[in-house]
Amino acid sequence: MKPLTFFRLQTREEVLAHYRKFSPLGQEEVHLLAAAGRITAVPIVVPEDVPPFPRAAMDGYAVRAQDTFGASPGLPQYLEIKGDVAMGRAPTQEVGPGEALRLPTGGMLPSGADAVVMVEYTAEHPNLTLEVRRAVAPGENILQPGEDVRQGETLLEAGHRLRPQDIGLLAALGIISIAVHRQPSVAIISSGDEIVPVSQTPGPAQVRDSNAHLAAAQVKENGGTPLVWGIIPDDHQALKNALAGALQEADLILVSGGSSVGARDLTIQAIEDLPGADVLVHGVAIRPGKPTILAEVGGKPLLGLPGHPASAAVVMHVLGRPLMARLTGLADPGGWGGTVTAKLSRNLSGASGREDFVRVSLRQEGDTLWADPILGPSGLLSPLVKSHGLVMIPLGVEGLNRDETVMVQLFE
Amino acid sequence: MKPLTFFRLQTREEVLAHYRKFSPLGQEEVHLLAAAGRITAVPIVVPEDVPPFPRAAMDGYAVRAQDTFGASPGLPQYLEIKGDVAMGRAPTQEVGPGEALRLPTGGMLPSGADAVVMVEYTAEHPNLTLEVRRAVAPGENILQPGEDVRQGETLLEAGHRLRPQDIGLLAALGIISIAVHRQPSVAIISSGDEIVPVSQTPGPAQVRDSNAHLAAAQVKENGGTPLVWGIIPDDHQALKNALAGALQEADLILVSGGSSVGARDLTIQAIEDLPGADVLVHGVAIRPGKPTILAEVGGKPLLGLPGHPASAAVVMHVLGRPLMARLTGLADPGGWGGTVTAKLSRNLSGASGREDFVRVSLRQEGDTLWADPILGPSGLLSPLVKSHGLVMIPLGVEGLNRDETVMVQLFE
Repeated sequence: MKPLTFFRLQTREEVLAHYRKFSPLGQEEVHLLAAAGRITAVPIVVPEDVPPFPRAAMDGYAVRAQDTFGASPGLPQYLEIKGDVAMGRAPTQEVGPGEALRLPTGGMLPSGADAVVMVEYTAEHPNLTLEVRRAVAPGENILQPGEDVRQGETLLEAGHRLRPQDIGLLAALGIISIAVHRQPSVAIISSGDEIVPVSQTPGPAQVRDSNAHLAAAQVKENGGTPLVWGIIPDDHQALKNALAGALQEADLILVSGGSSVGARDLTIQAIEDLPGADVLVHGVAIRPGKPTILAEVGGKPLLGLPGHPASAAVVMHVLGRPLMARLTGLADPGGWGGTVTAKLSRNLSGASGREDFVRVSLRQEGDTLWADPILGPSGLLSPLVKSHGLVMIPLGVEGLNRDETVMVQLFE
Repeated sequence: MKPLTFFRLQTREEVLAHYRKFSPLGQEEVHLLAAAGRITAVPIVVPEDVPPFPRAAMDGYAVRAQDTFGASPGLPQYLEIKGDVAMGRAPTQEVGPGEALRLPTGGMLPSGADAVVMVEYTAEHPNLTLEVRRAVAPGENILQPGEDVRQGETLLEAGHRLRPQDIGLLAALGIISIAVHRQPSVAIISSGDEIVPVSQTPGPAQVRDSNAHLAAAQVKENGGTPLVWGIIPDDHQALKNALAGALQEADLILVSGGSSVGARDLTIQAIEDLPGADVLVHGVAIRPGKPTILAEVGGKPLLGLPGHPASAAVVMHVLGRPLMARLTGLADPGGWGGTVTAKLSRNLSGASGREDFVRVSLRQEGDTLWADPILGPSGLLSPLVKSHGLVMIPLGVEGLNRDETVMVQLFE
């Protein structure tokens, strides 16, 4: 065993900066029906104009706009109805001067016509005479070819998470195979002599493996596939072997270590002894979550989570999610949502020298959204279950005051 | 064919009130590893205390608190170290008066002891003498049995979406099979003579089936399984047969009808002719989305979407998601997220007599988040792709002013 390296605490920003060392995963092609929520690996360029032909935007009549000029309810114009344009078929008739063709919404504009009169401003009289009570300008009530998207323009940048409307437009363009980033497989290793599988009744002094399940759910929420590796005893060689095996299979390794100093030393030593391991972070200036480890082994990231459940959950939220975003190639991990502003219902003092993440539950009272801090040791899970998100007390801030407006980072 | 029934426009609230007619889907048991994101079907009651035994919350020494009373850096107390408590094993020694046992975080408190002195406030001297430089109160640095959750208390109500931390606590409790609501299978029927499958090159006057793909992605995002039923021509009997078939298989039917009056009449007629059909809504006072249909057939909901893609997307967001939430049993579909406040960058006039949903893109400029309205005919998809969410102009409001603070309902 090599001697333990000692590290200074790094800030959250410093940890995030290390993530640039890890490349987004390679690309794969997925079918349109499986593409929702995936991240584009390359920009998507429009292969053809949409709509591909001039279409009616309203139910009505295809006309020559100039034939309607001056039409009003008091002084209508009269046109001759030559027939119908059927949906899904090219028109078989042209529109000549003084003529009109019935045209449903979405129908193809017949040649000769340059506008659509909405049915609301017309009346059909005997002998196929159309009364037009309102003038239309050329192009009115028509979607022009390329009006939605035009061939050659960039529809979506790389690193974009595909939403339902994006899928709709890809479908309209006939793009049925899409290059997206591969989704990370994430090995989750639990270590600790006191840990037993969830299916087992713990003996005296034993506890069930809750952190691995919490982490697995968080991995799934962020577009990864969890590989639950199982429980490794507090033994240097066993832990090192498990890490080496997981590094063969997975794109990211999460180690849910013990919460005692001895267990943490064991984890960091097992990591340092892996060939090519580079421990980037050992200790982060956040509370809870100080005993977090980040390492790079052969280009792959390894994140060591604190043993306390609440600490592990906060670290997954604050540091694990951006790391997953980096691997999935997501350009803008924050997006626009995920936070609400609320008023703090009591004073909070910060953790000197660390960013402090305080669990809060939200409560609407009239027009005010209150954030109620939920305090309690970080060994407990129930405060997390009762909370809706986190409020951060920044580094160097002594605390936050009751009634202060705070930003709540939502869990969901 | 029965004669067409005529309906008045209903408000969004009236439509949502109809949803109470539909029962949440039945329950099924899922394994803990597959339970994230699912909705609880019954309240979950705590089967046993967590933690099950008194545990150390910190690394240190198990002691009798009274032996430390009065200890200070200047006047330490001295105790005799009797040995170690191992992780995962019941202690083999007791702590008598004047004695201490080494105890790692998470280790089981030995009998006789009632507190833990943190390692930071101690020093080990030769001959197993422990110097204690700070007094501890009884119970200090200990997690008591049941301190996290207590047997018999309700952990989670029915209708709760399971988040990672909930999964973590269920794991800690050994609850590996969870009763959740079944997820809806949602048949998506496209109708229209002009529609061709996405894999096909449209002929003149034809377009690809984009709405079905948009709807399928939205169904998946909301926890449903889309069954893409295919394209049905504009024919009464064919559409009626397709609806009847889909009602056999699916929990919810979405019909993406044509956008022309003729196609809409065909859809409503096919629905009205189904045995036991009850058309609840034919026309909603929202823009876009007016030609929306809601029906109940044999207890199952059927939602007719407008043909224009932008209208279909808004209706799925505003009316489809709450309907899916109802079927999945989700008690609080809105949650706390999903909206941001922003400043409107231009004046907007409302749709008289309808709630108006305006697409906006978001733009951060210094401290201000701007909502830029993206206008354009509802036949286009690209304005939706460029937008981040919707701003609603309420019924009876003439419009919104530039610089006004608005709530943006996010797409994501």
